[in-house]
Amino acid sequence: MIAKDNPTRDRLIAIGLKSLVLHGFEGVGLNAILHAAGVPKGSFYYFFKSKEDFARAVLDAYERRADEQQGAILKDTSRSPMKRLHDYFDVIGRGHLAEAPLGGCLFGVLSQTAAARSPEFKARLAQVFSTWEAELAQLLEEAKSAGEVDIGLDTREAAAFLIDSFEGMLVRLKVDGDPSALRRFKRMALDPLDLRRSAG
Amino acid sequence: MIAKDNPTRDRLIAIGLKSLVLHGFEGVGLNAILHAAGVPKGSFYYFFKSKEDFARAVLDAYERRADEQQGAILKDTSRSPMKRLHDYFDVIGRGHLAEAPLGGCLFGVLSQTAAARSPEFKARLAQVFSTWEAELAQLLEEAKSAGEVDIGLDTREAAAFLIDSFEGMLVRLKVDGDPSALRRFKRMALDPLDLRRSAG
Repeated sequence: MIAKDNPTRDRLIAIGLKSLVLHGFEGVGLNAILHAAGVPKGSFYYFFKSKEDFARAVLDAYERRADEQQGAILKDTSRSPMKRLHDYFDVIGRGHLAEAPLGGCLFGVLSQTAAARSPEFKARLAQVFSTWEAELAQLLEEAKSAGEVDIGLDTREAAAFLIDSFEGMLVRLKVDGDPSALRRFKRMALDPLDLRRSAG
Repeated sequence: MIAKDNPTRDRLIAIGLKSLVLHGFEGVGLNAILHAAGVPKGSFYYFFKSKEDFARAVLDAYERRADEQQGAILKDTSRSPMKRLHDYFDVIGRGHLAEAPLGGCLFGVLSQTAAARSPEFKARLAQVFSTWEAELAQLLEEAKSAGEVDIGLDTREAAAFLIDSFEGMLVRLKVDGDPSALRRFKRMALDPLDLRRSAG
């Protein structure tokens, strides 16, 4: 069992994340990452079995960090459920805008060529989306109880749709860098769910 | 000037499209494409200056084919504007579902790593989205005149949003292959724009 908080491993993961988001799984050169991290090749295979194993470790770290940093907003009961949902997308959306055009969502990037990965890796990606969807659906259920969204809303479908529109917005951001994409997402995907805003 | 309807060039483009959609720009191996097409390397550089030049030719062909095959639906005035919009997304959505998980949208795939391309290639991708958006916005303007959508609708924003949600739906489809994604897109993105359906 390799300690997961090893600083060399952490450095490889941090550099790997930037490279994966920019170049995609296929475009990542392990030699360039090792060089940037100042790590010999042998060390890489001490930590990771393969390139896919490495990408999975980057994915785990990315999901964990997202959960720590933005997941707190979703659970902050001092704000109403819909306020949390708006604030959540504001925070992650502005994070992506700040990194454009070099940034992006690791989930979306890795998914684009998921068919060329192993079934395990593909299942891991499906799980990432499904977990994210369940979190947002849970929040929409709370919003339903609070009378902030329509009582008939299919919260699972709405959550999946928010993720779809957000990921698609990030795809577009990569080619034209137009920051109005985030406003568009909020106005067109988020506001119509919110009874206070769609009525106003 | 190289003839653009050369059968060898066409074959390289057809094989290149499948490979690009599956593996992304970075994952495409020119040798594998040449081998599959039965074309020697020298011929490749007779037709294309570089891998990026090749990807641009594939993109041109993909856009032209999409315009020929589905663009006709958008212009078919025997159907109402919103009927055309629904039919259009039905046709392209079902086309993607039929090809899942090996298929996908070339625009989305190439955009994911657009930051690593030349400024010219990135501008070409931005143009693809902007042209698509203008076509859909034009149809939504017709829908406005026909009383099918809200008179206050920002048709350009709504068109961009339809593209975002559609592209994001295709990202998700790549990892879980769940065909309900298309129904979700139609119910959540398309129907709310349609006064007859959102009122019903």
